[in-house]
Amino acid sequence: MSNIYFLEKYKNADIYIKREDLHPFSFGGNKVKIAQEIFADMEEKGCTSVISFGSPTSNMNRAIAHMAASKGITCRVVMKTEGRDARTMPMNERLVRESGAYVTECAPSEVRETIIRVMEEARSAGEKPYYIYGDSSGHGNEEVLMRAYGKQYWPIREYERQEDVKFSDIFLAVGTAATISGLMASISEGCEVDEPRIFLHGISVARKEEAVREAIQRFLASCGYDTPQCLGLADITDAYLGGGYAGTAASPVRMLIDEKMRTLGLPLDPVYTGKAYYGMLREIDRLGITGSVLFIHTGGMPLFFDYWQER
Amino acid sequence: MSNIYFLEKYKNADIYIKREDLHPFSFGGNKVKIAQEIFADMEEKGCTSVISFGSPTSNMNRAIAHMAASKGITCRVVMKTEGRDARTMPMNERLVRESGAYVTECAPSEVRETIIRVMEEARSAGEKPYYIYGDSSGHGNEEVLMRAYGKQYWPIREYERQEDVKFSDIFLAVGTAATISGLMASISEGCEVDEPRIFLHGISVARKEEAVREAIQRFLASCGYDTPQCLGLADITDAYLGGGYAGTAASPVRMLIDEKMRTLGLPLDPVYTGKAYYGMLREIDRLGITGSVLFIHTGGMPLFFDYWQER
Repeated sequence: MSNIYFLEKYKNADIYIKREDLHPFSFGGNKVKIAQEIFADMEEKGCTSVISFGSPTSNMNRAIAHMAASKGITCRVVMKTEGRDARTMPMNERLVRESGAYVTECAPSEVRETIIRVMEEARSAGEKPYYIYGDSSGHGNEEVLMRAYGKQYWPIREYERQEDVKFSDIFLAVGTAATISGLMASISEGCEVDEPRIFLHGISVARKEEAVREAIQRFLASCGYDTPQCLGLADITDAYLGGGYAGTAASPVRMLIDEKMRTLGLPLDPVYTGKAYYGMLREIDRLGITGSVLFIHTGGMPLFFDYWQER
Repeated sequence: MSNIYFLEKYKNADIYIKREDLHPFSFGGNKVKIAQEIFADMEEKGCTSVISFGSPTSNMNRAIAHMAASKGITCRVVMKTEGRDARTMPMNERLVRESGAYVTECAPSEVRETIIRVMEEARSAGEKPYYIYGDSSGHGNEEVLMRAYGKQYWPIREYERQEDVKFSDIFLAVGTAATISGLMASISEGCEVDEPRIFLHGISVARKEEAVREAIQRFLASCGYDTPQCLGLADITDAYLGGGYAGTAASPVRMLIDEKMRTLGLPLDPVYTGKAYYGMLREIDRLGITGSVLFIHTGGMPLFFDYWQER
């Protein structure tokens, strides 16, 4: 079942969209796909509880919390709450708190020690906890996080074949870099049977280019991929960060979100997909891209409604 | 592409769900499918603007407003605003207002005269307006409204064939009754080639049983269906209205909404789908239904987030 659709024409480019947000569980998105891999690995390792980490707007925390609740598994969430507006709680945080997960708030400088403390709490409660990012510094589980997108070249290629279209470029939002790293690995595998032709564009939503590249290198290296070859398949840009991660997107992004809802019935949000869509249009301008491109809508329906609530 | 999934076991029933809310345009739902039929008919009739009508929480108004905006067609919305809480504007109303539609508010006692006035406004602006419900009393367009679900027996049957499952019962929320009337017509056509075996259960979300039955009779008669035969295919109940239409569902419905989000990652809302899902479980209890049943999730994502905002 394909979730790819033709969306709109922009200058000389035909924009198609892969709607990961239309997955049936918990508003979908790439994080639900990643959560499925995490829980499969967790069961294989015989762990009995899960620990997630992220900001109050994190889609990952929500996906993990709902999946844990659906399976009756104890879930702990470490939430980096810096800069949260006390008046309005993001929908993702509400959903996490309502899921029955145990939430521990922490400052950005206390993440590591808080993760360690929460892991100890879980162990002294008799659990065998699974921290989704690996060790307390957030490394060691790259292979599992990459897995969900590590085969995604093939369904995209299958859609191309069925619909007689060839994508020259794929655009997507990049946060933790797990999704783009998986796609790079998968496209690199595709290059072994097809001519290399799809170029990835990662629009960073939070970090500077250098930090994103380092994260990607760590992901690829952990799975034994030829990093320089893979890096040649993608461009990373931090030119569309706006005011940074937490929904402080610049007003052109907000205007774009309004326009795409109105004219395409498409929900985007200011934290992830709105920045990425805006960045895609500017990159199409800058590079003079023509032909067919694919935008991966990585999800985040609750963030769309946060935005709408605040307008 | 099927949007039917196995959802959960309840007592001796296997509940499957048809996720109309996962349609890619404007949060989907049955109203987006109905809007597609309306715009097709409108173009055939050479009309140049569209008029919708409904409450501030209406999914239909939102679907019509977005589809009009996406096509560059002028849209007027008559909004029955009785009982609205002035502090919180429903997401559907926000989306309608942001779509560029002209909104005219009216009291419940003034609907007819307001529709007439707005139609005259449109005509004096040089438009050939199309009122989605027909004439000013809301009759005359039953056939078009029914069309979207008038063929839905066949994809359901195709899913049954592919997945080797047979549904004994279908449950859905009933408001205007357009969707259930279409389904009744389609199942009645199915009975000409298959043995009659699927029974429909319409859970009224707003009106008393008698009023719903009258509406269904009007829909079926307008399309020349054998009304008594079709009525034999469905049961209508108003036992789960709770406090009435506008999100004042009784607390068991609210508890169910919370539980289904938590344990199934499934968004329901207190106006439509939450009442219907609650009603389905109670009817399964009451009638001792076993085997496979299908719940039609008729959409309403913005209403889920209204509910979540108010909790």
